[in-house]
Amino acid sequence: MATQFPLSSEFERLTVYGPTRATVSGTPLDAEEVRKIHAFWRACNYLALGMIYLRGNPLLREPLKPEHIKHRLLGHWGSSPNLAFVYTHLNRAIRKHDLDMIFMAGPGHGAPGVLGPLYLEGSYSEIYPDKDLSEEGLLNFFKQFSFPGGIGSHCTPETPGSIHEGGELGYVLSHACGAAFDNPDLIVAAVVGDGEAETGPLATSWHINKFLNPIRDGAVLPILNLNGYKINNPTLLARISHEELENLLRGYGYTPYFVEGSEPESMHQAMAATVDRSIEDIRAAQTEARASGIARRPRWPMIVLRSPKGWTAPRQIDGHNVEGFWRAHQVPVADVAKNPEHLKLLEGWMRSYKPEELFDAEGCPVAEIREMAPAGLRRMGLNPHANGGHLKKALRIPNFRNYGIEVAKPGQIEAPNTQPLGVFLRDVMKENAHNFRLFGPDENTSNKLDAVYAAAKKFWIAEYFPEDQDGGELAPDGRVMEMLSEHTLEGMLEGYLLTGRHGFLSTYEAFVHVIDSMFNQHAKWLSICNQLSWRQDVASLNLLITSTVWRQDHNGFTHQDPGFLDVVVNKSADVTRIYLPPDVNSLLSVADHCLRSQNYINVIVSDKQLHLQFMDMDAAIAHCTEGLGIWEWASNDEGQEPDVVMACAGDIPTLEALAATALLREEFPELKIRFINVVDLFKLQPESEHPHGLSDKDFDSLFTRDKPVIFNFHGYPWLIHRLAYRRTNHANMHVRGYKEKGNINTPLELAINNQIDRFSLAIDVIDRIPEIAVSGAHAKARFRKQQIACRQYAYEHGVDMPEVAGWRWPG
Amino acid sequence: MATQFPLSSEFERLTVYGPTRATVSGTPLDAEEVRKIHAFWRACNYLALGMIYLRGNPLLREPLKPEHIKHRLLGHWGSSPNLAFVYTHLNRAIRKHDLDMIFMAGPGHGAPGVLGPLYLEGSYSEIYPDKDLSEEGLLNFFKQFSFPGGIGSHCTPETPGSIHEGGELGYVLSHACGAAFDNPDLIVAAVVGDGEAETGPLATSWHINKFLNPIRDGAVLPILNLNGYKINNPTLLARISHEELENLLRGYGYTPYFVEGSEPESMHQAMAATVDRSIEDIRAAQTEARASGIARRPRWPMIVLRSPKGWTAPRQIDGHNVEGFWRAHQVPVADVAKNPEHLKLLEGWMRSYKPEELFDAEGCPVAEIREMAPAGLRRMGLNPHANGGHLKKALRIPNFRNYGIEVAKPGQIEAPNTQPLGVFLRDVMKENAHNFRLFGPDENTSNKLDAVYAAAKKFWIAEYFPEDQDGGELAPDGRVMEMLSEHTLEGMLEGYLLTGRHGFLSTYEAFVHVIDSMFNQHAKWLSICNQLSWRQDVASLNLLITSTVWRQDHNGFTHQDPGFLDVVVNKSADVTRIYLPPDVNSLLSVADHCLRSQNYINVIVSDKQLHLQFMDMDAAIAHCTEGLGIWEWASNDEGQEPDVVMACAGDIPTLEALAATALLREEFPELKIRFINVVDLFKLQPESEHPHGLSDKDFDSLFTRDKPVIFNFHGYPWLIHRLAYRRTNHANMHVRGYKEKGNINTPLELAINNQIDRFSLAIDVIDRIPEIAVSGAHAKARFRKQQIACRQYAYEHGVDMPEVAGWRWPG
Repeated sequence: MATQFPLSSEFERLTVYGPTRATVSGTPLDAEEVRKIHAFWRACNYLALGMIYLRGNPLLREPLKPEHIKHRLLGHWGSSPNLAFVYTHLNRAIRKHDLDMIFMAGPGHGAPGVLGPLYLEGSYSEIYPDKDLSEEGLLNFFKQFSFPGGIGSHCTPETPGSIHEGGELGYVLSHACGAAFDNPDLIVAAVVGDGEAETGPLATSWHINKFLNPIRDGAVLPILNLNGYKINNPTLLARISHEELENLLRGYGYTPYFVEGSEPESMHQAMAATVDRSIEDIRAAQTEARASGIARRPRWPMIVLRSPKGWTAPRQIDGHNVEGFWRAHQVPVADVAKNPEHLKLLEGWMRSYKPEELFDAEGCPVAEIREMAPAGLRRMGLNPHANGGHLKKALRIPNFRNYGIEVAKPGQIEAPNTQPLGVFLRDVMKENAHNFRLFGPDENTSNKLDAVYAAAKKFWIAEYFPEDQDGGELAPDGRVMEMLSEHTLEGMLEGYLLTGRHGFLSTYEAFVHVIDSMFNQHAKWLSICNQLSWRQDVASLNLLITSTVWRQDHNGFTHQDPGFLDVVVNKSADVTRIYLPPDVNSLLSVADHCLRSQNYINVIVSDKQLHLQFMDMDAAIAHCTEGLGIWEWASNDEGQEPDVVMACAGDIPTLEALAATALLREEFPELKIRFINVVDLFKLQPESEHPHGLSDKDFDSLFTRDKPVIFNFHGYPWLIHRLAYRRTNHANMHVRGYKEKGNINTPLELAINNQIDRFSLAIDVIDRIPEIAVSGAHAKARFRKQQIACRQYAYEHGVDMPEVAGWRWPG
Repeated sequence: MATQFPLSSEFERLTVYGPTRATVSGTPLDAEEVRKIHAFWRACNYLALGMIYLRGNPLLREPLKPEHIKHRLLGHWGSSPNLAFVYTHLNRAIRKHDLDMIFMAGPGHGAPGVLGPLYLEGSYSEIYPDKDLSEEGLLNFFKQFSFPGGIGSHCTPETPGSIHEGGELGYVLSHACGAAFDNPDLIVAAVVGDGEAETGPLATSWHINKFLNPIRDGAVLPILNLNGYKINNPTLLARISHEELENLLRGYGYTPYFVEGSEPESMHQAMAATVDRSIEDIRAAQTEARASGIARRPRWPMIVLRSPKGWTAPRQIDGHNVEGFWRAHQVPVADVAKNPEHLKLLEGWMRSYKPEELFDAEGCPVAEIREMAPAGLRRMGLNPHANGGHLKKALRIPNFRNYGIEVAKPGQIEAPNTQPLGVFLRDVMKENAHNFRLFGPDENTSNKLDAVYAAAKKFWIAEYFPEDQDGGELAPDGRVMEMLSEHTLEGMLEGYLLTGRHGFLSTYEAFVHVIDSMFNQHAKWLSICNQLSWRQDVASLNLLITSTVWRQDHNGFTHQDPGFLDVVVNKSADVTRIYLPPDVNSLLSVADHCLRSQNYINVIVSDKQLHLQFMDMDAAIAHCTEGLGIWEWASNDEGQEPDVVMACAGDIPTLEALAATALLREEFPELKIRFINVVDLFKLQPESEHPHGLSDKDFDSLFTRDKPVIFNFHGYPWLIHRLAYRRTNHANMHVRGYKEKGNINTPLELAINNQIDRFSLAIDVIDRIPEIAVSGAHAKARFRKQQIACRQYAYEHGVDMPEVAGWRWPG
């Protein structure tokens, strides 16, 4: 049932072929400027092709032969000329207005369009001297691209001036926004690809304009490049009417300036006029706000650049459209080494950029091209914001010991674990008014970190109602960033850190999976940076996972998912850390450590509810410093080999393991139990696998070589096996954890369903010690009865039996 | 540096308090209709409060006392009255226009607002007879809510009429779109919360209107409820100007109708007029398209309902705003059991709905309320689309054997593994023209599934250019859904499956992490459904993960991530399946099996590039049926106990394991090697953990009890340990896999870096067999040299050494 296709003419045909159209009128460039700008851009495009194709004859000094062509043709032409076009015009604006500007390339696989101008401006050679401005350097530059041991087709960490790789799409605007925070003079030019624009994270991140303060923050200049195509498809935004697109962008809060066309000269004029106008708008908004002291949300400018995909490629090859079509996406002519006609076509195409005019006899770009780039640190490849460690100031951290609580005896009082952390973070915020921010998806109060609002409120620049004064904690100079988009917050934080600042993100445990992929990509970024001597150290990304599974009993199954840790452990040991502090003082100690660290992603798991407290501050510090250890007060092995090891990690699992220990010690006074709590999860891994890993000797001396170990874990139980499978005593390790047995529960019922409760653990021990099998049978029966009683109480009353839920360590 | 807040008066104050405003004018209801509609809504609101608060005195027949109040107050009032308001008006429209309509509640924790009308319409009692329309039934209904053993505060699977839980936010529109596909008469009413609207997935999913064909598909009616607040914050969309919001929604392609206010009578009139108008618009667009046969994209209507959060709650409690403020989000008055004044306040509030007018002496809703609901299957709680198994037709599946390739001898020829699958899917598509769709983010061609376009093109209803005919494969009756948003595609597919259809999604392996969280939530949904006898079986969600890590050597580190499987294994064994077919014929066999299965999420890992072929069709079927097995032709243990087991899972790991086996057999002819390939990953788990798990006996007989096992795995190596740690021979299992050693590589270099290559594996074996230590030393040295040679070749040529990359099984 083929339905008829509506005729194209029924729509306004949005083609880039035809007279150049632009919202901003004017021809700001004289003929000489056009010529030079065009020459720079031609050079960029020549370099992009060189990277994709050449392993010899880099300046086309001789006719192109098959042996000059790389064996494997990789890289993407499609978005490269458009990126280089933008970069070229931003260079002009930087020089004209003396701008402090960095560049982010959102479109996928766009590196050739960025590497070209980086090479021409000389920043590439300064970092990589073997790619200097000579014929040999040029050839090295070409050969390394998409080549083993070389660099990739995204703006990877190896790319000078890049803090946004773009291997995974969708995060360019949130990264740009984070970079602009607290950098009032900075402009972040962020090119958004129209493919990328279809992703969810990008679609909501247009709203960053509601999080930028024109007084205190810099500006983001989004440049939406409608090149019209993805890998094999048109893009949605390129195929809606001009009216719809303009509505959409105005609806997002921008003033969009359109630049549409393909004819170079008029496009250069239009782009120059539009970039100038955008800079003027930005400066006007900032000046007005800064003069008045009133931070309103400007309708920030943005640019829509509708230009052909693969711009300046042949319009057609072998009867197929290339320029202006999706066939320009990757390598437009693939078989040049074997097809003489295609080789000739490529040569003609490359020569169309007139390399002989662009490079001198030594292969150095001619002076007038080099002069089109800004100088020194104004070059976007060397702007220190894009290697943020250069600008990073150490965080001023108050003494975390002062925020702890008194714990006279272990296991006697309850306190909400995250609340004192909020007070600590409040004072971190106070001490670091310009380079620390807190991020959270509308959950900082729910997660009991609301003390921070005394130091810095939630940033809010949209409409304000009188009732917002009633606890709304909103302010246009707020430094707590709250939006119901984990993607946007994570992106902002990454951008903030990579430009040399510090931050902290908290989120619900179950929904941190929303940003699994962003975590993966940031971890990959950091681990490559660790291999680059010129990349300066940046602050760690601190991620507090709270509202955790064991207290999401009431929110139900969808809110119960401790699996993020399983994602974390897949990433490089060099950049990943996981902590499960069980109480207030240990959480403070861990947080202090994480705030001081560099180049990691620190994942801290701690629930927000009332929890039993185990350690005074000194004990907590000692314990966290070790990362794990025996709690002597709960153990009765007294330096001897125990009969059983009761181990635990996480707040509720620790409570239940402790209660199980108390049950067992009362029941079997002769049974020697060693109680171990684990804060630093990677201690369990061999030292060969993770720098925090315990030596086998230390592990054996703690967990014994052959005694049963019952391990009560916060997350999915298999993770402990994964970490500890090489340990001597692994076969005797019996791990309990969350195993997807949830629904609407009480906390205790949820624990029982997943067998992390005290009774299950006590039974686990009895089952593993043949010596107490007989006496244990009665105890087991009693424990099972108690479980049933707990369940019944929960079903009847909707709450947990107070005598069990309110349990205290009897010691 | 406190910057001054701009005065609220400088904005257009967008308050819901004031005269009701609406885009659509008219007062379609007579006084009697208003009275009845309002009564139904009052009843809904009364029920919502009853669910949150009461465990006794459900009809307030006596004064409210502390003992009538639940011990633990849970649930969310905030969005409930608004959801019930919408539901009430949709009921009217269903009756008036005889609509086939289902309902999706996007706002978080909105279940009380949906459960109320479900109870009143009688659909709840039909499924749960103990919650019948009596005082006792009502009390049961109240007590179970947010109560252990009861139901949650989202529209969980236990909710009749729900196929969208909403525990995690962001997916209501994509779910709605999937439900509307191929259901031309269906209207899916989808309420979008303004909190949810801030998420990325939701923000891009407004574009579903570019994927709905007005001839063939049903309609989605989005209803954006601007109640103004999240947990503790205003929402962004509620605090931008009317003009911006209208621009945004028009930019997304809708005709928005606004209904703004709080005064019930005029709001009922405005909502009724607006719903009527929306239905008329939908019908008009459909009629026009269906009459003309031309599928244009209509500017579909949508409704913006700006109404107070917690509507009809007290405006203030204890001096704090409640109705119309974020304080109405959860339980607005918390301490009613202990605070007599608050108890009185609650009682007054509940009595304000006049329950005595709403329920009769037996506690049954009075007739005029019951009559406000549609009848029979028109009730949204019983609409069969929302229990899609009722409507599901078995897929007509051609014989997959006909799509296989000839494999005369194992390991001699190469073929692209996914391409024949594309041909198979093409014919599945042909045979099931109305209930099967393929989904992929602009990657179906890249992933070599493009044969499907011969049966069904890519759906495209936006502007069409002449050049699109050149391989664009676009058509307004296309059935392949491509958008660069994994979130939207996954959501569409879930909606499609849960309404009784079939589908298949393919995506790049690294970026499937983008939908980790959606996978988690769908798995949770399915595993709860399995516990509900009234939920009919639905087709499995089939997810092909391709463009896998071992062939993303050229795209670099960002594109190398096989960690999705680690997320999958955390979910219930009842609903998860993982397959790693190593070649064409096994992939076809697995795909056939998956397409026939029900209630699972099937994850298939298979790369798209040329791969060595191992099995003819009969062998593939036998092998996939077993799930794993010995490849006799590669083994030389000949029924005896081997010296070593070489095991593998995944295409490239299988190739390398096989090449290692060949090396070893040539080097050490006496060495008895058993070669095992694993397709069904869960076979490795004990049968107690997963229904596919091998018995220990079978496992031991395959993997031996004490011989070294070298396991070459597709993903992160620890996953194998996690699955197999309980097996007898686990201590001797040595697993290789991806361990984050990547950048720009060749395939072989990437394998070597991660030690999954043939040389590393051969060395692994030698290291584990003391008997060949002496003779093996030379071989090891030679293998190491060969690794170096391979690396050097890659660094020099950018491609792999042909004699190694082009290896064939010598047997």
